[in-house]
Amino acid sequence: MSKPLNIGLIGYGFMGRAHSNAYRQVAQFFPELQHRPVLKAVCARNADKVRAFAAQWGYESTETDWRRLVERKDIDLIDICTPNNVHAEIALAAAAAGKMILCEKPLAMNGAEGQRMVEAVERAGVPNMVWYNYRRVPAVTLAQHLIAQGKLGRIFHYRAKFLQDWTINPELPQGGAGLWRLDVAAAGSGVSGDLLAHCIDTALWLNGPLVSINALTETFVKQRKHTLTGQVEPVGIDDACLFIGRFANGSLANFESTRYARGHKALYTFEINGEHASIAWDLHDLHRLQYFDHRDEGIVRGWRSIHVTDGDHPYMGKWWVPGLQIGYEHSFIHQVADFIAGVESGQPAMPTFRDALRTQMVLDAILQSAKTHAWAEVPMVEG
Amino acid sequence: MSKPLNIGLIGYGFMGRAHSNAYRQVAQFFPELQHRPVLKAVCARNADKVRAFAAQWGYESTETDWRRLVERKDIDLIDICTPNNVHAEIALAAAAAGKMILCEKPLAMNGAEGQRMVEAVERAGVPNMVWYNYRRVPAVTLAQHLIAQGKLGRIFHYRAKFLQDWTINPELPQGGAGLWRLDVAAAGSGVSGDLLAHCIDTALWLNGPLVSINALTETFVKQRKHTLTGQVEPVGIDDACLFIGRFANGSLANFESTRYARGHKALYTFEINGEHASIAWDLHDLHRLQYFDHRDEGIVRGWRSIHVTDGDHPYMGKWWVPGLQIGYEHSFIHQVADFIAGVESGQPAMPTFRDALRTQMVLDAILQSAKTHAWAEVPMVEG
Amino acid sequence: MSKPLNIGLIGYGFMGRAHSNAYRQVAQFFPELQHRPVLKAVCARNADKVRAFAAQWGYESTETDWRRLVERKDIDLIDICTPNNVHAEIALAAAAAGKMILCEKPLAMNGAEGQRMVEAVERAGVPNMVWYNYRRVPAVTLAQHLIAQGKLGRIFHYRAKFLQDWTINPELPQGGAGLWRLDVAAAGSGVSGDLLAHCIDTALWLNGPLVSINALTETFVKQRKHTLTGQVEPVGIDDACLFIGRFANGSLANFESTRYARGHKALYTFEINGEHASIAWDLHDLHRLQYFDHRDEGIVRGWRSIHVTDGDHPYMGKWWVPGLQIGYEHSFIHQVADFIAGVESGQPAMPTFRDALRTQMVLDAILQSAKTHAWAEVPMVEG
Amino acid sequence: MSKPLNIGLIGYGFMGRAHSNAYRQVAQFFPELQHRPVLKAVCARNADKVRAFAAQWGYESTETDWRRLVERKDIDLIDICTPNNVHAEIALAAAAAGKMILCEKPLAMNGAEGQRMVEAVERAGVPNMVWYNYRRVPAVTLAQHLIAQGKLGRIFHYRAKFLQDWTINPELPQGGAGLWRLDVAAAGSGVSGDLLAHCIDTALWLNGPLVSINALTETFVKQRKHTLTGQVEPVGIDDACLFIGRFANGSLANFESTRYARGHKALYTFEINGEHASIAWDLHDLHRLQYFDHRDEGIVRGWRSIHVTDGDHPYMGKWWVPGLQIGYEHSFIHQVADFIAGVESGQPAMPTFRDALRTQMVLDAILQSAKTHAWAEVPMVEG
Repeated sequence: MSKPLNIGLIGYGFMGRAHSNAYRQVAQFFPELQHRPVLKAVCARNADKVRAFAAQWGYESTETDWRRLVERKDIDLIDICTPNNVHAEIALAAAAAGKMILCEKPLAMNGAEGQRMVEAVERAGVPNMVWYNYRRVPAVTLAQHLIAQGKLGRIFHYRAKFLQDWTINPELPQGGAGLWRLDVAAAGSGVSGDLLAHCIDTALWLNGPLVSINALTETFVKQRKHTLTGQVEPVGIDDACLFIGRFANGSLANFESTRYARGHKALYTFEINGEHASIAWDLHDLHRLQYFDHRDEGIVRGWRSIHVTDGDHPYMGKWWVPGLQIGYEHSFIHQVADFIAGVESGQPAMPTFRDALRTQMVLDAILQSAKTHAWAEVPMVEG
Repeated sequence: MSKPLNIGLIGYGFMGRAHSNAYRQVAQFFPELQHRPVLKAVCARNADKVRAFAAQWGYESTETDWRRLVERKDIDLIDICTPNNVHAEIALAAAAAGKMILCEKPLAMNGAEGQRMVEAVERAGVPNMVWYNYRRVPAVTLAQHLIAQGKLGRIFHYRAKFLQDWTINPELPQGGAGLWRLDVAAAGSGVSGDLLAHCIDTALWLNGPLVSINALTETFVKQRKHTLTGQVEPVGIDDACLFIGRFANGSLANFESTRYARGHKALYTFEINGEHASIAWDLHDLHRLQYFDHRDEGIVRGWRSIHVTDGDHPYMGKWWVPGLQIGYEHSFIHQVADFIAGVESGQPAMPTFRDALRTQMVLDAILQSAKTHAWAEVPMVEG
Repeated sequence: MSKPLNIGLIGYGFMGRAHSNAYRQVAQFFPELQHRPVLKAVCARNADKVRAFAAQWGYESTETDWRRLVERKDIDLIDICTPNNVHAEIALAAAAAGKMILCEKPLAMNGAEGQRMVEAVERAGVPNMVWYNYRRVPAVTLAQHLIAQGKLGRIFHYRAKFLQDWTINPELPQGGAGLWRLDVAAAGSGVSGDLLAHCIDTALWLNGPLVSINALTETFVKQRKHTLTGQVEPVGIDDACLFIGRFANGSLANFESTRYARGHKALYTFEINGEHASIAWDLHDLHRLQYFDHRDEGIVRGWRSIHVTDGDHPYMGKWWVPGLQIGYEHSFIHQVADFIAGVESGQPAMPTFRDALRTQMVLDAILQSAKTHAWAEVPMVEG
Repeated sequence: MSKPLNIGLIGYGFMGRAHSNAYRQVAQFFPELQHRPVLKAVCARNADKVRAFAAQWGYESTETDWRRLVERKDIDLIDICTPNNVHAEIALAAAAAGKMILCEKPLAMNGAEGQRMVEAVERAGVPNMVWYNYRRVPAVTLAQHLIAQGKLGRIFHYRAKFLQDWTINPELPQGGAGLWRLDVAAAGSGVSGDLLAHCIDTALWLNGPLVSINALTETFVKQRKHTLTGQVEPVGIDDACLFIGRFANGSLANFESTRYARGHKALYTFEINGEHASIAWDLHDLHRLQYFDHRDEGIVRGWRSIHVTDGDHPYMGKWWVPGLQIGYEHSFIHQVADFIAGVESGQPAMPTFRDALRTQMVLDAILQSAKTHAWAEVPMVEG
């Protein structure tokens, strides 16, 4: 018999949709789970819009004040899909109320805030996770498995980029619905927290801690009209962020993110070069993993384009048949499945708030380095 | 207010899953539709398995005899996901019962049978459609739009292949669950009806009628153990099928399908060469369309790799944001959406049974040509 | 001490340039050869132009009548780069004069003519070879080695295409310098002899004899102005040619060539699907070989993109360092090197006239099949 | 009438071969040039080996002391293909002797040495050029033309990498023939001077001056046997070098080079993101340019893969026909052609010693930044 897992979602933007879809899909494809998400309530400030969203997605009820949602007894899990500047406050309240918490990335506005959130959920003893969804793209998970098996040997290089081009137009305003990511007050940072955060989360998972970095940020469009004030105001976010650095395992880091790379919509790529083998991946063709193994016979050695759709590839046994690809949204479904499995097994699924705090610490170091024009050490997070 | 569209599904294999998912997903992503599919009943012979399937997918009830399902008053639509040899019988009964009918491809065991099915649904006046789902892959739909806009000019060549490699192992048996496609009694033909049928459907849609063809078939593994009888029996299906031919518009056809192309899981590709522009597509990277336009400035002319994920690309405004890809299953969701929209607008969505009969006529011509070692004319289907 | 190999070249068009370059380059990159080509004489009808060509390329002398060239005692080797309709006459005279003969492809206007040429060179006992240069692209040679090693196992499919787009414009005239390939009187056929001949030569080398075929040809532009007569005249060549067929080893053939495939300049591709492994190659990226091996570990199985530039790849030890690619012209240099090595070792380099006659027989069968709309058997060539 | 340009080559390694080939090839493909290189003399310390090289390549004479070569009256041009630590001494002597000078890259061991070389050749008024050959790959030259036409608009990002994997094996010794690049005394630096120097030269040409950088270097294998001493000795070169920085035009720089990127033999890539368009290139497929133009119609916008082989592409009218690619060696032939054309026109071909000094200054800044762990300004070179 399946048990309900009552979801209370806060925020109905792009992420609200992606998470709602995941909750609706997980039981059909992961029938071994005992808990089945129930779309109990969705919360947002605009009553009309939140009702429409609830109707479309099948939420049983709506709220317009997140504090009320957090207090509801019929909610097991609070899912935070708000702009970054509200994550902490909600998470602290939800932890105090004993709710499980899923939080959109980046965890917090900065490391100090993230630290308080970690302490809150750990003190409360509630299951918690951050939506760094790309870990659950099957090709990325496969990369992790290959590394864990030692296939790559000693790692020399880790390279990641997240390139977009949607803010090149200087007429695009900052702030408001859909554009809060351009408003430093709501987002905390620009591409570093939005895009590079994904790259860092994956990197820490695949390659271990980053120890020191040197970063460079740039704001190409210095002022934009603010949607909320109607005034042209200085832009406070970073439009582009690059850093070089060192991992604890001795490998070198090269990271870059921007929203000014014409021709790239969401090109998150990474490549890892090891002593024996290398791996590369690309979000624009997310169902493929590139793999080179130096131990292959010399004359037929080459980069292999692995179409990660076989039944023995991570998660893929749950879906269709070999050759038929899945897409972006599935990474969220996998993450919900892993979260529930973690709750059921007692082995919490990663990345927990504590795991995500490590990424936050790197983000802090990035902004500090960019500001001081000097190398920055990344503070260690225990545990 | 949304109106229920009560679904009765027959068969719970690979296609039963894909269709069930489509019914569950369509309302959230196409909220403008007035009808919302309701998973009323699923039917299959094995009572335990069908109950388990119903539980997993949320069907309200089960049946073990399709005739009972067809008679139920609470069912609006019969969806036929059985092996090919049962399509006609069910469709005729469902038409007689006044049900809407969706039928898996190929429509029938042969053209004559298909003709009877067309007559039945048209006489009954029930909405009907065949699941040639690849028309609704956004990149394929985009290809159709570009052709309809005249961007390619006169067409010279149409080339399609559907390559798989899953039956190379001679130990693989024929017949039975999951393997009925190897049993000529259940499937009617091998790769021609299974794979080439998709290629033909797309081709007729994009490039108009095929008029004459010359085909070659081969059965590489001549006998296999039959799962149902336990005996080694001759293999009656075609393992590979190639044909060349002519379209009514004067262009030349080159088609091939096989299950013996090592390294390809489900590589459905097509390429169309026109006077001004060419188009190519590939199921293994289904979210991309390759496009070459000779009218581009000479020194920067090249094949464009279009990442079909923008809001103004077909269907993509319904999903996520630019750069984030969808997958195989979405083609079914789109097809359900189009079917419902067709019911609501009175403009039936294609391919109807009649449209699918055209593909069936090509399949007949293929088998006839292969058997007689001679060119075959493709019978014209009116309307 | 190197010995001179005195070259007499007939024709200074595109092929005359490519061959001249090969003669000039071979000694530097294949220093182990004892014979060094000497550019003794070049022959063409236009005295001014042939003198200019000789000056540019370093030929010691010129002729305007090929018969005089063939008679010269100081010439060891006659290289025939004329339009196809003159190959036989020159080859017969050169054989009678005891010259070594290199002849551009296709060998002859038809099989009967080719047969006479084979008899002539074999009766005379002179070294002979036909310029099917693509055998000596390192990636293609590597493909042959892999097949010879048995890496692919039983072969199921052989697929080849040669696609161009340069004759789509109907204003392009036929006949005359650079355009004799459009004139059936000079060329004998269109794309079949020009392009498909390459595909066939490679196929016979890699996959053995073709036994039966069914072909389809088309002339899209039915009449063109003739450069020599100034009149609009019917076009006698095939603009496109497709065939399906069977190889002696039981594999299926799918071949196509056209000059109406918008977007492709010289896209010669082939793919071979074997029981254990598959191979694919593409002239537009000629330094790469695609290779899939089913024996690779399942989760990291994929098509390998082999950058054929390593020292242990065929011919590549002669050139630069790994990663640095060579181009089209090098296939001719390799062919000259192999020819000379064959002369020195007594093991004639392929394809000899006799080898090329096999391709000619396939071409005859193609044209016959296309004309009769029926399958054609390919006549066997002994030896 | 062609005039001789008498070449005196110093060094017969990999570069000696590539240059010799260029001298031999240029006249046939660039017949409009009045000067024709004559291989007058080659110089190296080992008398036997240099004689063998001369015989293979057709040099008229040999020398074993470069000072004697520089003094010879019959030499017009000294080509320096020695290890880096001898460039300056030879160049100064050659300039004093009034010779034209071609010098392998990097120009010098450091900026100060390079400065003296620039002063010497400019004082002497002799034509001079440095072999940054990748500027003359047709696709790279095309990139420059597109940028010069303003097609990209304001530039936001310039990204370059040069990845190799040939020194991962710790048993590989340093020093001696073929391995002097691992010996800091001979090479001055590791990948920065060897590989990154190419990336920087191209970048300065395409995107203007770099103004400030922050670099990171690493030596993964700390000690290797030295071929000359027979002892295991510390490795003084950088095995990997990364830097971030800023160009004068406001764009951001991300550069990386390494010899520890498993799977990459010579993967020099760059990508430039402009306001309107982006460009990317890759040495492993050097005949292609990737181009994205945002001004293309939205639904068919995509990265174009330009096969740079048409007659109106840079240099390609000199070679074969569209679709047929050239390779690595041709970049040297083009450079010789441009050098001669520059001598004849009085418009010196780039990069001159002065141009190459700018790259040297960036290299100095890199090593300084890596050593001091701080940002470094790039000294401006006038002129």
